[in-house]
Amino acid sequence: MIGLIRVLTTSNEEVLEQHGKLISRLYGVPVISRCIPDQPLGIYNDETEAAAVPKIVELGQSLEAQGCRVLVISCAADPAIRELREKVAVPVIGAGSAASHLALAVGRKVGVMGITDGAPAVMQELLGDRLVTYLQPEEVTNTTDLMTPAGGEKAIAAARRLMEQGVEVIVFACTGFSTIGLADVLRQELNVLVIDAVEAEGLLASALYKQLERERAVV
Amino acid sequence: MIGLIRVLTTSNEEVLEQHGKLISRLYGVPVISRCIPDQPLGIYNDETEAAAVPKIVELGQSLEAQGCRVLVISCAADPAIRELREKVAVPVIGAGSAASHLALAVGRKVGVMGITDGAPAVMQELLGDRLVTYLQPEEVTNTTDLMTPAGGEKAIAAARRLMEQGVEVIVFACTGFSTIGLADVLRQELNVLVIDAVEAEGLLASALYKQLERERAVV
Repeated sequence: MIGLIRVLTTSNEEVLEQHGKLISRLYGVPVISRCIPDQPLGIYNDETEAAAVPKIVELGQSLEAQGCRVLVISCAADPAIRELREKVAVPVIGAGSAASHLALAVGRKVGVMGITDGAPAVMQELLGDRLVTYLQPEEVTNTTDLMTPAGGEKAIAAARRLMEQGVEVIVFACTGFSTIGLADVLRQELNVLVIDAVEAEGLLASALYKQLERERAVV
Repeated sequence: MIGLIRVLTTSNEEVLEQHGKLISRLYGVPVISRCIPDQPLGIYNDETEAAAVPKIVELGQSLEAQGCRVLVISCAADPAIRELREKVAVPVIGAGSAASHLALAVGRKVGVMGITDGAPAVMQELLGDRLVTYLQPEEVTNTTDLMTPAGGEKAIAAARRLMEQGVEVIVFACTGFSTIGLADVLRQELNVLVIDAVEAEGLLASALYKQLERERAVV
């Protein structure tokens, strides 16, 4: 089992399992999704990130104790990833670092798209001078804004602006883009490579999970 | 189709297709394998690398012209990757950078194992201070040496030495290790995460190929 940590609080089972179901469907692996307590708005500034860190660590430890062989922090900012890696023996994948490393391995000029003012620190640090620019679709500050035809047009327009600046690979800095299927829209409309943060974390976590299971099955 | 470049010369179809067949089997993608001319011993020093660069570029351009949508340079030293990326429009994945980026995304201490005196420059640069150490199994200077029971024992002993130094992820700096299935041996014997260079290039190339095919199928 892969243990997936949602960095917000929800009692809505469908919301809770959005990322895990996508990963199960794409890569054929079992995923258990859990969310941190008492943060219905998730992480949106330094204080809420600091508050979330011990909760993510505790949740990760609990998922490991339940038998998860790989953990995923399903947020492009990779909150608490260092702290959690220190506390568990299993591999921990973060959406932000997974997406960034995939982009770096492709070796093309990268543009990052998100719904905040800038790319998460972890993505800026990893991408370095490969990062041509960061863009936020106009008037889009949450993923609900994108779930309308007008919102979709804004996202396509933002992707076009990235490509006009020489970007060859678009990386998402928001896991909410995965839920609404934005990657496939951009791939179809613009013939551009898109690295979706949930797809990226799932690709790496599932590869590790498969090798760990294969090993256990044989021994 | 994924176009895979073998960085040695062979007229033996089985040898030529070793990496491509592994990738096809693991990830369910079509791979066409081609090799560079007039270098039966491959790349083993600066001169032979310099000689190979224009051949790799020409072969990559030819594979792109034949319709390959992703190219792979199937060698842990990533020879000619920069030069080829400048000459083609399709993504180019290298074994060394792919394996290194996967290891970095796992976020654990890395040990590299190969059959040369040191890790390829590209892997050293990318892994930076994540790289705890590099090891060459004793008395093993080519992969044929590993294909005996005694050779297998030497590889396991080398992996054990890496783990004694705190290594949590072993990365192969030799694509020949893939051909002999060494990764699964170490996973089973030592319960350690292993990033195999051919598996790594295949994971990334197949993910890109699938997204490009999906896009084309839909449009």
